[in-house]
Amino acid sequence: MSSLLPTWPPELTPAQHAHLLNLSISHALSHGFTLLPPQTPTPPTHAFAAPLSLFPTPFPRELYFLARDIQPIYNALYARVALDWEFLDRVMGGSVSLVDEFQGALWNGWKKIREDIAQPLHLGIFRSDYLLHATDPAGPLDIKQVEFNTIAASFGALSQRAGEMHRYLAEETNQYFGASSHLADLDAYPANESLREIAAGLAEGWKAYGEDDAVVLFVVQEGERNVFDQRWLQYELLEEHDIKTVRHTFAELEELAQIDPESKRLLLPSPLQPDAEPLEVAVIYYRSAYTPTDYPSATEWETRLLLERSQAIKCPSMALQLAGAKKIQQVLAEPGVLEDFLLGSNRPDVGFGVGAGSLTQADVEKLRKTWIGLWPMDNSPLGQEAYRMALEESDRFVLKPQREGGGITSTAGISLPH
Amino acid sequence: MSSLLPTWPPELTPAQHAHLLNLSISHALSHGFTLLPPQTPTPPTHAFAAPLSLFPTPFPRELYFLARDIQPIYNALYARVALDWEFLDRVMGGSVSLVDEFQGALWNGWKKIREDIAQPLHLGIFRSDYLLHATDPAGPLDIKQVEFNTIAASFGALSQRAGEMHRYLAEETNQYFGASSHLADLDAYPANESLREIAAGLAEGWKAYGEDDAVVLFVVQEGERNVFDQRWLQYELLEEHDIKTVRHTFAELEELAQIDPESKRLLLPSPLQPDAEPLEVAVIYYRSAYTPTDYPSATEWETRLLLERSQAIKCPSMALQLAGAKKIQQVLAEPGVLEDFLLGSNRPDVGFGVGAGSLTQADVEKLRKTWIGLWPMDNSPLGQEAYRMALEESDRFVLKPQREGGGITSTAGISLPH
Repeated sequence: MSSLLPTWPPELTPAQHAHLLNLSISHALSHGFTLLPPQTPTPPTHAFAAPLSLFPTPFPRELYFLARDIQPIYNALYARVALDWEFLDRVMGGSVSLVDEFQGALWNGWKKIREDIAQPLHLGIFRSDYLLHATDPAGPLDIKQVEFNTIAASFGALSQRAGEMHRYLAEETNQYFGASSHLADLDAYPANESLREIAAGLAEGWKAYGEDDAVVLFVVQEGERNVFDQRWLQYELLEEHDIKTVRHTFAELEELAQIDPESKRLLLPSPLQPDAEPLEVAVIYYRSAYTPTDYPSATEWETRLLLERSQAIKCPSMALQLAGAKKIQQVLAEPGVLEDFLLGSNRPDVGFGVGAGSLTQADVEKLRKTWIGLWPMDNSPLGQEAYRMALEESDRFVLKPQREGGGITSTAGISLPH
Repeated sequence: MSSLLPTWPPELTPAQHAHLLNLSISHALSHGFTLLPPQTPTPPTHAFAAPLSLFPTPFPRELYFLARDIQPIYNALYARVALDWEFLDRVMGGSVSLVDEFQGALWNGWKKIREDIAQPLHLGIFRSDYLLHATDPAGPLDIKQVEFNTIAASFGALSQRAGEMHRYLAEETNQYFGASSHLADLDAYPANESLREIAAGLAEGWKAYGEDDAVVLFVVQEGERNVFDQRWLQYELLEEHDIKTVRHTFAELEELAQIDPESKRLLLPSPLQPDAEPLEVAVIYYRSAYTPTDYPSATEWETRLLLERSQAIKCPSMALQLAGAKKIQQVLAEPGVLEDFLLGSNRPDVGFGVGAGSLTQADVEKLRKTWIGLWPMDNSPLGQEAYRMALEESDRFVLKPQREGGGITSTAGISLPH
């Protein structure tokens, strides 16, 4: 750990530790900072506190604000990637779709229907993940991007609950019993309103669709344990935005989903009120559809393509999902590519104006500074160089698959032959 | 059931019923409308949805408002009972303390220390329980009082959560799929703010004590399952009133509680911060101390008396707890007693002025109208008459013990010999 960070967590007496545990878990259980147990029936019977940290983690203030400040530029970058069919075809049509069946299917599916997509708007809810990094233990700290999530980025709601819980614990215990000077100032606990903001983003999409009676469709996984993270978004949409939501799996949508042939509106007859008018979907919010097990057969791909062709606004569109591939992240790191996307004269307006608009070379540098080296694993000269380095200095590298969903990154030292 | 009430619950299709179950339990688990499982360790690991009804229950509007309107008169009545030592001595010194060891111990304990009580203020959080009643199935409906709780009245917080859940279910499901005209008008769902109001009551007590750094002490039972109902009050006190709370059992208080000999302030050294100044207690809020098992030995009574003698404001005082005995409820029903308490010229001002003040015979009648016949079980002429009736017409009567805590009322037909 960098010597610039305090030793953490601070020490507590056993009694203080036990008290904090009880306060934190009781608060989590009260406030829906929770998960369902594995193999939960429907309806569920009980909930567990989500894994939580008793303390907030010290984080350099300027790097925290840096991460927030550059997010709009990242949003613009990935929006432009998603709109650049030629780029997506070039990258996804290379080694990726050959070695990765899932990314290949996503790309091929999208190519098949992309000329027929009725809805020009895309909706992106992104999460950029960073690690604190110091090359030298005494040296300066930086944030380095792990990945940029463009589909089903989760824990937005529970993150807000975590921040609320830490603030509560501090207030309840005289700032954690004075265990650390870093915990003493409540103004230094950042307000994390990710639940509120993600719901506001979905509401923006709903407004852009412009149909008061339309709903937001949550496409969910069967047996989802992280369901409260999703439910809070549904509650917030209902209470703060007066927007109704429905939840369906791909299997249910295979039965229900219809596209009106004229208007291309996505319609869902309600199995609960068969005589009622079908619901019209304004926004499709995917909390599924990002991993091969979400598509056990060709049917799920057919359903995905049906949804994609509809008038509903997709969060994300297939193009945005493709833009989130690790391979894209790596290609963006190649010389000149980032400049082209942010400053290239023909790039569309995605918030900063056409071309460079209000973006500058300094913005390019800010993003690039958050990257750690990324190399392809293919037959290109860069790929061959990467292969050699991985074999010779395996401890320095991590092997990243295209997959989403966590828990599937291998350190190169373990997964590559020596 | 009276023919004046709709058939209830309304019918649903199996799919609607399953959907409502899932929505309601998910909402309950998200919003802390929950209980701990039996034999929960500390810290807890998981929570169950509290027992809940899918539908709100139709209730005659004028009787609902009647119950609310007469509550201040009931509050005044029980305040005056608690202040009338002679009355309490007469009633509790009769058959009750002879046949009921617990009520006897409470009364005797109070008599021992009542001259030494440093704090003149009492704090009461009351819950008056009613059943809808119709003598004739086609006849008019009335509310009839089951009991008046003066200690540890529970489910205030969870009741608010129940009301919020029903409103959510209605909004989420087009007023329960149109299953009943009684569910169609959201304005007819009464706002139940019992959590907010109970916390505001405790905050009033805290303000009356007048010490900014003092806390509210929750005296709780070991292994309490209904802990979220209490935690929500603690959260509300912290967030809305900036008042800190601590929770302790009698066993813990036996070790911790001290009275400053001069000021009679109740002080609690913190086992979590032994070097810190002891906490001063402004209000003692009992969610324990109401049932014999809360006093397994003489030590708990000693602790109770120690707390009672202190400067802290007790919610409730022992006198208020005594006033809530079923025997008091029965004596209040004897001729002239209610008039004496509400209209008697020497009665103290507890909100309506000295004596009758702004109270009238009409107020007396309003309260009395909520009573169903109450008879003593003793050697008095009324008691002998009651005994005869219970034997001859046992189906018409319920035998009520002095106990609090629910689940211990017997129908006379079962528990009395024929």
